[in-house]
Amino acid sequence: MADRPIKELDWKTPLEVAHKPSFNQIAKTGICGIMDLIAPGIPPGSDTASLALLGYDAIKVYSGRGALEAIGSNIKVLPGNVAFRCNFASVNKELVVLDRRAGRIANEDAAKLAKSLQKVKLKSSVEFLFKNTIQHRAVLVLRGKKLSIAVSDSDPEQTGSKVLEVKPLDESPEATFTADVLNDLLLKFHDVLEKHPVNKDRVRRGLPPANIVLCRGAGTIPKIKSLPEIYGIKASCIAAASLVKGVCKAAGMKLISVDGATGTPQTDFMAKAKATVEALKTCDLAFLHVKATDAASHDGNIKQKIKIIEKIDQMIDYILKNTDSASTYLAVTSDHTTSLLTGNHEGDPVPIAITGPYIRKDDVEKFDERSCAKGGLSRIRGMDVMPILMDLLGKSKKFGT
Amino acid sequence: MADRPIKELDWKTPLEVAHKPSFNQIAKTGICGIMDLIAPGIPPGSDTASLALLGYDAIKVYSGRGALEAIGSNIKVLPGNVAFRCNFASVNKELVVLDRRAGRIANEDAAKLAKSLQKVKLKSSVEFLFKNTIQHRAVLVLRGKKLSIAVSDSDPEQTGSKVLEVKPLDESPEATFTADVLNDLLLKFHDVLEKHPVNKDRVRRGLPPANIVLCRGAGTIPKIKSLPEIYGIKASCIAAASLVKGVCKAAGMKLISVDGATGTPQTDFMAKAKATVEALKTCDLAFLHVKATDAASHDGNIKQKIKIIEKIDQMIDYILKNTDSASTYLAVTSDHTTSLLTGNHEGDPVPIAITGPYIRKDDVEKFDERSCAKGGLSRIRGMDVMPILMDLLGKSKKFGT
Repeated sequence: MADRPIKELDWKTPLEVAHKPSFNQIAKTGICGIMDLIAPGIPPGSDTASLALLGYDAIKVYSGRGALEAIGSNIKVLPGNVAFRCNFASVNKELVVLDRRAGRIANEDAAKLAKSLQKVKLKSSVEFLFKNTIQHRAVLVLRGKKLSIAVSDSDPEQTGSKVLEVKPLDESPEATFTADVLNDLLLKFHDVLEKHPVNKDRVRRGLPPANIVLCRGAGTIPKIKSLPEIYGIKASCIAAASLVKGVCKAAGMKLISVDGATGTPQTDFMAKAKATVEALKTCDLAFLHVKATDAASHDGNIKQKIKIIEKIDQMIDYILKNTDSASTYLAVTSDHTTSLLTGNHEGDPVPIAITGPYIRKDDVEKFDERSCAKGGLSRIRGMDVMPILMDLLGKSKKFGT
Repeated sequence: MADRPIKELDWKTPLEVAHKPSFNQIAKTGICGIMDLIAPGIPPGSDTASLALLGYDAIKVYSGRGALEAIGSNIKVLPGNVAFRCNFASVNKELVVLDRRAGRIANEDAAKLAKSLQKVKLKSSVEFLFKNTIQHRAVLVLRGKKLSIAVSDSDPEQTGSKVLEVKPLDESPEATFTADVLNDLLLKFHDVLEKHPVNKDRVRRGLPPANIVLCRGAGTIPKIKSLPEIYGIKASCIAAASLVKGVCKAAGMKLISVDGATGTPQTDFMAKAKATVEALKTCDLAFLHVKATDAASHDGNIKQKIKIIEKIDQMIDYILKNTDSASTYLAVTSDHTTSLLTGNHEGDPVPIAITGPYIRKDDVEKFDERSCAKGGLSRIRGMDVMPILMDLLGKSKKFGT
């Protein structure tokens, strides 16, 4: 949601331009500040930002994306398993990528291919689980002893480049072993896919064959204590993005499914707001995440980004009107700055505002990047938010006596 | 001293309401900010907060309360010794606590009991020192090899509960050994106390017998370099609370006794101010600590808290008038937020103001939680204060060349 000022908006940011009375109400009645998710100038990923927002020291605990995304898609990953994000893709005979998404292959075709791939036999004692998720997307989980996340991607992440050989990223025998296992498996996958009837049929229909699986983002489950363990709270997650859901699951939060929540600009904003209010009836903490502003930013769509901020504002309006302000704390923030101009996550801090009983209200009146910089929170880190909220809730533990 | 806004004060804090021209003069002529003693949202103890204020990284060096409180009460604790805070208490035959303070037993009775307890023989090679301090309070120091602070308390900290067995808190043989030694010793203490003439006499007089010793807060001397070693300075401490005195002693500061300084709201504020001015004639640094605001906060006494702030303001007035502003730096702050509402230490930041020559004076005019948040220091940590002050004094060492 956070951004940099741009010429098209008369050197303002989308947050500064959007009509957002509810965001502003939180700023007006609460305490504001700016926040570096990780540290000043460091662009956070969606995974590390979510870890930080839930109070973890991402620099210490981050262990790759693959496993988090897998558990967020309801795929079982056990401690020590190494998981990867995968794409079905189209390659030519020289293994040059022609289409990274195999024509955004339909779920049904992908499911048939995945079923065949699951029958592949590995030469080592390692077992694997391969599951398609949405369209060309899939997850691969390696299960065995002595596996490592220190392996490179096979996905070159651009068309016209050759599929990459997976390489160990450190000198441990585990990394070499994992790279070997993966190279062997991906080659066997390619053999199965080349001959598969689904692909023969796709070629007949003029569709790009899904004749290779590209892997990236080796990851394992982070070794973290859950929020219930740390703070003795019940916590819920209302999110559609599987990566964010995965982080919340690793943190011991309950994942709440919401019909119509898609993680896209077309998501059902109000359904998520209602689910949040409902969750707060039985939970100490509800974490509501909207992905849509990020998607709009990656696409450089200024109008859409502003419109989504205004829709989020309506969600907040619903939450403000349907929770008890005498006993509820409400914090609004952004999990990273994504620039409409560069289309990338950037290292600029994000605004944050917290309202609720006995807050040291400041005189900031608007929720945006520059107004909040003048607030009473000054400049905090992402991992400070949970301790601050838990302290307000009376759930924190004194350090010392 | 720091607090949250409360309804009874029209949503202001005690600092915002109190008449405090001298505090404000420091803010007006100096640079202000807010400070997290440990980190945002973390409620500090009095021990960890004092360590931080003296420049130590409390998260790394904190080693329990017992030893700090003991050395603050002039009881010798050597490196490796494990010290406990103790209470004389009354229990029934089933070891259920009836009175945690044994009727606030008089010093004379407690001294007689302590003298007898010191004669107890332990089965192991560990030696001990047991000393009564004020009323029911006492200190126990275990001296020997292979002792650990990873042991639980025997004090259940409430009446109606049974005395707890001391348990090891980690799997080290040292923790198990220390717990065994302590359980053995406390049982022998109980035997001696049950038969003691002082207690027989107390029962005859209708007073609760001091028939058990309760232990809590296992601690050892923190492994820290002293302030004279780190900065080459002479430093003094003007405090009454034995825990704060203990931290200052561990930091190599001279403890100055002040007649009438009691650590209570009835303390002699002006005597402490005079001792501080006197100390500054021979020392580079004087640390003046007032406990009274904390006591008032724990009691939820709004009026008293405001009154104490006003008395501290008069101390500061004396110090301002009796030190040379051209050569003296004066910093005022609070060692934690203690909420009048919850009665607990809270994780909210505290205000800080520093005045003195060549300071980058900002435009803050008042010393309170919200005014200082707009100051030129922005948001700092407790452990930053000493380096800042030492740098102003020209006592800091360059890092690098």
